[in-house]
Amino acid sequence: MRVPLELRRAYKLLNHGPTTLVTSAAKGRTNVMAAAWTMPIDFDPPKVSVVIAEGTFTRELVDASGEFTLCVPARAQLDLVYAAGTDSGRDEDKWAALGLKAAPASRVKAPLVEGCVGWLECRVLPEPDVQRKYDLFIAEVVAAWVEDSVWKDGGWDFSAGDDSRPIHHLAGGVFFATGERLQARKP
Amino acid sequence: MRVPLELRRAYKLLNHGPTTLVTSAAKGRTNVMAAAWTMPIDFDPPKVSVVIAEGTFTRELVDASGEFTLCVPARAQLDLVYAAGTDSGRDEDKWAALGLKAAPASRVKAPLVEGCVGWLECRVLPEPDVQRKYDLFIAEVVAAWVEDSVWKDGGWDFSAGDDSRPIHHLAGGVFFATGERLQARKP
Repeated sequence: MRVPLELRRAYKLLNHGPTTLVTSAAKGRTNVMAAAWTMPIDFDPPKVSVVIAEGTFTRELVDASGEFTLCVPARAQLDLVYAAGTDSGRDEDKWAALGLKAAPASRVKAPLVEGCVGWLECRVLPEPDVQRKYDLFIAEVVAAWVEDSVWKDGGWDFSAGDDSRPIHHLAGGVFFATGERLQARKP
Repeated sequence: MRVPLELRRAYKLLNHGPTTLVTSAAKGRTNVMAAAWTMPIDFDPPKVSVVIAEGTFTRELVDASGEFTLCVPARAQLDLVYAAGTDSGRDEDKWAALGLKAAPASRVKAPLVEGCVGWLECRVLPEPDVQRKYDLFIAEVVAAWVEDSVWKDGGWDFSAGDDSRPIHHLAGGVFFATGERLQARKP
């Protein structure tokens, strides 16, 4: 079940570097694409950065709305994540084509992707120079959600099943699942 | 063995979101710290971004030199990566304290950390506004290296042993190893 996550913990959804789905909405259209190039950049209020390439339909919708979501898909969604990163939504409805269901977000118009295990609702902090030069967007996280079956004691816990593990894109459709949990010794 | 990696493939060292060690050198001092908040932002020439917090010794050395390296540590280095992200190098030699060995880089003064499985030599592309506002640095990768025992056919291959898998920090010393390799279906 999708449950609200405290904003001060929102960075944990991305801290281990999973590949995400970026959703966007503007002009009566919505879209979804995959993005591996995203990371937290601040704790509280939480901020993130993400590369959204010029020329993509998502870029058009984010430029128009100043909003997007970052959804953390699970291993069970492997094939559709790769497809979402390969096809363009400009000429077709990727939601329908990929069998994706959208749920309304709480504070942005861009929808949440059902079946993911984490969700961040984001508002762009305009930095026109770096957006133009590097396709790099900085945003504040204004709401966060997590799938409660994989979240325990304030962090990810994937012991319940491998299908819920996030995925990390290497290249060309090769991914790694989030692997074994390791506890470092206190220095 | 550390072997040169073609620059066009350099993004693959970070694409799956591992936690890194950032090294720096200036004013006759060197330092090493851990950074989970780093990602590729371009393919060729390869560029990366990384958060280097104000007030850290690494920030002082990177501001002075305009250079750093991003090294991808392996699971065998778990405890020292956590320690490198917790202690400060301002008042002690972290290399000695953590038992780390430095090897010379090829194009920057910041050294490479021995025992890692990937290395990126980086030169800062100055963006003073985002550096100041978000502690966010953008850099060009000018040389790249990979441990050849975990690299096959142009990408990571960890089948030889779990100790060489990169690690992904969640929070507070909890990490996940890079997990199972998954091949998505071609869309």
